[in-house]
Amino acid sequence: MILFHFYQLNQLTRYIYIHIIFATRHEITGIITKVGSNVKNFKVGDRAAVGCLAAACMECEFCKDSQENYCDKIQFTYNGIFWDGSITYGGYSEMLVADYRFVVHVPENIAMDAAAPLLCAGITVFCPMKDNNLIDSPAKKRIGIVGLGGLGHVAVKFGKAFGHHVTVISTSPSKEKEAKELLGADEFILSTNAMQMQAGKRTLDFILDTVSAKHSLGPILELLKVNGTLSVVGAPEAPFELPSFPLIFGKRSVKGSMTGGMRETQEMMNVCGKYNITCNIEVIKPDQINEALDRLARNDVRYRFVIDIAGGARE
Amino acid sequence: MILFHFYQLNQLTRYIYIHIIFATRHEITGIITKVGSNVKNFKVGDRAAVGCLAAACMECEFCKDSQENYCDKIQFTYNGIFWDGSITYGGYSEMLVADYRFVVHVPENIAMDAAAPLLCAGITVFCPMKDNNLIDSPAKKRIGIVGLGGLGHVAVKFGKAFGHHVTVISTSPSKEKEAKELLGADEFILSTNAMQMQAGKRTLDFILDTVSAKHSLGPILELLKVNGTLSVVGAPEAPFELPSFPLIFGKRSVKGSMTGGMRETQEMMNVCGKYNITCNIEVIKPDQINEALDRLARNDVRYRFVIDIAGGARE
Repeated sequence: MILFHFYQLNQLTRYIYIHIIFATRHEITGIITKVGSNVKNFKVGDRAAVGCLAAACMECEFCKDSQENYCDKIQFTYNGIFWDGSITYGGYSEMLVADYRFVVHVPENIAMDAAAPLLCAGITVFCPMKDNNLIDSPAKKRIGIVGLGGLGHVAVKFGKAFGHHVTVISTSPSKEKEAKELLGADEFILSTNAMQMQAGKRTLDFILDTVSAKHSLGPILELLKVNGTLSVVGAPEAPFELPSFPLIFGKRSVKGSMTGGMRETQEMMNVCGKYNITCNIEVIKPDQINEALDRLARNDVRYRFVIDIAGGARE
Repeated sequence: MILFHFYQLNQLTRYIYIHIIFATRHEITGIITKVGSNVKNFKVGDRAAVGCLAAACMECEFCKDSQENYCDKIQFTYNGIFWDGSITYGGYSEMLVADYRFVVHVPENIAMDAAAPLLCAGITVFCPMKDNNLIDSPAKKRIGIVGLGGLGHVAVKFGKAFGHHVTVISTSPSKEKEAKELLGADEFILSTNAMQMQAGKRTLDFILDTVSAKHSLGPILELLKVNGTLSVVGAPEAPFELPSFPLIFGKRSVKGSMTGGMRETQEMMNVCGKYNITCNIEVIKPDQINEALDRLARNDVRYRFVIDIAGGARE
């Protein structure tokens, strides 16, 4: 099956053909097989990746600043309705045709399968950490990561790569061992344990909340020092509960962040290459997708399923 | 009745006696009648004011930076239990004994009655506006003020004093006329009107939410541009509803703020002197307090009752 999505006749010369090797639905790595005449910086044979973003207006203030993710006319790679009315199918395809401005290079030293989830999980945690001067910064901070899943485990890796003191906060006691032993986290707080939460009050400079189930932000805010920032990247359907007291009495902030723009996505890939950061994944064949979805519903994956689209045909 | 609260024997030499002239419960103006031997910067006869803060440890990082309001050991002027076990009575008193480090000067050109609410309402809106570079800044911003009451009306005055474009957002249609004609607001959005809210989307750089009733922050966040900040100073008992989508898709922040430290309180008083900013008040006699409380419950005051404690004996 070959799907020519992200396809606009008047922009054909800017398009790149990517033979998909590994993918989740919206985190895609592959090899470039053809480039349009107006494509810059990419050539046939390059290791390439595509994430959440398929297109944006390229004319607004956000696009001009490579914050395409905040463009009003943003088009998503997966399950979106494209400008031409077609549905976008993300990584569920053997071939992808993408605008070169929404494609990034994959550093040579990182594996294509473990690199794929960087395109959403990675950039989603990278951006708020960069916004808070936690990437490649000389200042060492005490940071908290709420939720140890696809996003959280990459955030722990970024935190440790830059020498921060990392505390994982989770509702699952079983996550303590893997947080510390597998990922090198310094501390673990079981958020259902009132004593541990009490002991952690006012100890963290920054917290990244990756949990997408409904929860109260109050107890998490209490862990922040005065003036601390809680970055929220999970998107539960129901509103968060935000009690005013920990917000106001601690002069704290809750800040949202959604994936990242293309300049920062390439920057993140380069950082991952430099520090050898990839995702912990489990590779599955396309015919194992239903089984994987069942296991995902039981939270039984460490930490991301990646589909072997090319069937080992190339890497 | 003379109440010697904020009284610690070992610190007597730092205490100031203030004959209270006007007060709400925690916003107090008066004349200094006596100063301890270690009091600096104040003398008998000075016009002085005391706000929410009675004491703090004076040794922690916050106290050292004059952010006493975020000190762990903070003591409130009203309805607090002081370190010595006594209850603090705020402005419901003829005389106040205060630590000079929690007293500020009242500029000569502003009236003692209309100055009193600056000590809480004023500083509470001044701090987040200063944090967001809206005070005495050359950059002119589009700002929103949610709620036009004791706090909101002072925020509108600060906003207009520094040349910003000010939009008042309220659930009360009757507030439009007073927002524009009395206070000089540029625009008014009735938050119950879906069309007006829709038209206001992504138009504001900064919003100050002064409402202390429970409400959803979602529709207010939508009014902010990408990367905008919503400062929250009201403290409803029930948690705010914070939907993730307007937070995340707009990279927006919700930030808490509580009153202010003493350095900024004096700075705010000086700004009010320079720009002739005071509160719109209604002065009542002590025997009208019950009636005033009834009217307050009906939101029937523009915008603050101030009690004439001294009965016109001095000013």
